[in-house]
Amino acid sequence: MTNPSLDVLCIGNAIVDVITDANDAFLADQGLDKGAMRLIDEAEAVRLYGEMGPGREVSGGSAGNTAAGLAALGLRAGFIGQVADDQLGRIYAHDIEAQGVEFLVPARSDVGATARCLILVTPDAQRTMNTFLGAAQRLRAADVDLARVADAAILYFEGYLWDPAEPRAAMEAAIDAARNAGRKVAFTLSDTFCVERHRDGFQQLIDEGRIDILFANEAELAAMTGDEDFEVGLTGLAAQVPLLVVTRSAAGAVAVAGDERAAVAAEPIERLVDTTGAGDLFAAGFLAGQARGLGLEASLKLGAIAAAEVIQHYGARPEADLKALAGDLLG
Amino acid sequence: MTNPSLDVLCIGNAIVDVITDANDAFLADQGLDKGAMRLIDEAEAVRLYGEMGPGREVSGGSAGNTAAGLAALGLRAGFIGQVADDQLGRIYAHDIEAQGVEFLVPARSDVGATARCLILVTPDAQRTMNTFLGAAQRLRAADVDLARVADAAILYFEGYLWDPAEPRAAMEAAIDAARNAGRKVAFTLSDTFCVERHRDGFQQLIDEGRIDILFANEAELAAMTGDEDFEVGLTGLAAQVPLLVVTRSAAGAVAVAGDERAAVAAEPIERLVDTTGAGDLFAAGFLAGQARGLGLEASLKLGAIAAAEVIQHYGARPEADLKALAGDLLG
Repeated sequence: MTNPSLDVLCIGNAIVDVITDANDAFLADQGLDKGAMRLIDEAEAVRLYGEMGPGREVSGGSAGNTAAGLAALGLRAGFIGQVADDQLGRIYAHDIEAQGVEFLVPARSDVGATARCLILVTPDAQRTMNTFLGAAQRLRAADVDLARVADAAILYFEGYLWDPAEPRAAMEAAIDAARNAGRKVAFTLSDTFCVERHRDGFQQLIDEGRIDILFANEAELAAMTGDEDFEVGLTGLAAQVPLLVVTRSAAGAVAVAGDERAAVAAEPIERLVDTTGAGDLFAAGFLAGQARGLGLEASLKLGAIAAAEVIQHYGARPEADLKALAGDLLG
Repeated sequence: MTNPSLDVLCIGNAIVDVITDANDAFLADQGLDKGAMRLIDEAEAVRLYGEMGPGREVSGGSAGNTAAGLAALGLRAGFIGQVADDQLGRIYAHDIEAQGVEFLVPARSDVGATARCLILVTPDAQRTMNTFLGAAQRLRAADVDLARVADAAILYFEGYLWDPAEPRAAMEAAIDAARNAGRKVAFTLSDTFCVERHRDGFQQLIDEGRIDILFANEAELAAMTGDEDFEVGLTGLAAQVPLLVVTRSAAGAVAVAGDERAAVAAEPIERLVDTTGAGDLFAAGFLAGQARGLGLEASLKLGAIAAAEVIQHYGARPEADLKALAGDLLG
């Protein structure tokens, strides 16, 4: 096994976020479930966009945000995701490459439009997401550079991309390539509805021993295990994977690896603006620590630092100098 | 003369802003003149975009920002500007309509791509703008709804749009329609380089008595008059137009109408983030006051309030509730 030339390769939906302010009454009018992510088709995307206030567009997508966070922390990160050959696709490619991420999949003109996520941010900083996947769900196994996957210390992928069959097959091929190369595979459950749709598939990935590092938040942990009691759920799921990381919003995060357990508090923040990307950036910080060989506590601390930065402004990618914020932790 | 159904109709370049952070070294490397706006062609737009960091896209354009500010203040505003039938054009149309502005020109598919402005924001909150005009400079006189122009109390247009001949003719037709209907015509000099390019044309507009309200900042005033002394320039230009408004950044603003003169200080702010749109929103506030029949001082105060809001966040359109900030001033 040679030394990998990438620290982390991320696979996920390549999505441009369209962010706008909204109040609870608007969510109620539209029948939207606050804080959740739902998938919508193009017609609904056009309709809802027409009802929304003025927006700002920033590149996003869960695993893409994580890749951007890793690069901002100084790690060597790659990203695999499908965009269309259109203006939003060019914006997406520009942003992730300008962040220093190796973007591995060429744009295609036969896959509809680039994906976008209509994000409604309420005054309590909660985000309600409406995702039109478009081109993102057309990622093909043939377009995944398996040699590059095998050359990354960690492969990270998102549960969100498990929905359509074509990218699911692409991810399964990537998982196999990573494992055959002796690399680690990390996975995030992404969202409670995502867990509801794919609990059996996710459980199978775990049972087959194909996941080394599993990320979940409290709600996803409960949805995955069926246990409402946090400790029961944590202990139960931790017994099934080498390393389990659970984020708890303002209550911090915990990691369990066999008999070892560590926890950190959330980092203090000045002002909560938009929680979009909090989990994605937490994963970036944690994986950065793992890729550098740090322990659980230091990795959790890096996750908390990266998450704290991203929730203090609109948009799910870092704006401040994450490397400086990480200080001595990454040496 | 019937009561107009619009308070202000704005004509200008329909531009999507692409905003990114940059430092002085990057500006120097790229040979960019800090704080200025320059026009670039599509090849340079692609090249510079490739060098820039990750961006966020928000709708912009000087007169478009003013229209958005007017609507945010509760005024009835319209906007005339050309976008292409592409993703950025749809974003532009959505944002200005969602702000409550009547958007009067249909997208076209035979005009290249929608305009974009690559804006580099330095840590001192100065913005350096690189504008690819694309579709915006293809506005035709035939597409200007002159009946709607005649039905607006104030026509407002930007010096920026004076560059290409086609939209210049469109604006001249609009000016004539407004004047024939007994409406007021307001104009902003936009930018010192814009003044350098078109001083004679702007002077002719003034000499012909086609401008009722003229907006300039200190540098544009100096460029227009050739007087480095502020008072000399102000007095000289004020003698040529019914109402002259000059903004002075942190030093506030002054308005002169014949023998009457008023001045306001800048509004206090918590944090200067990005000065993009300061002049545009100042114009929105001032014109809102004028449209409601307020005096010079109250109009200036509204301008200062709107400008102060927009410089405390990224992007050139209001995010806070401008109507609430204006308080009793607009009744």
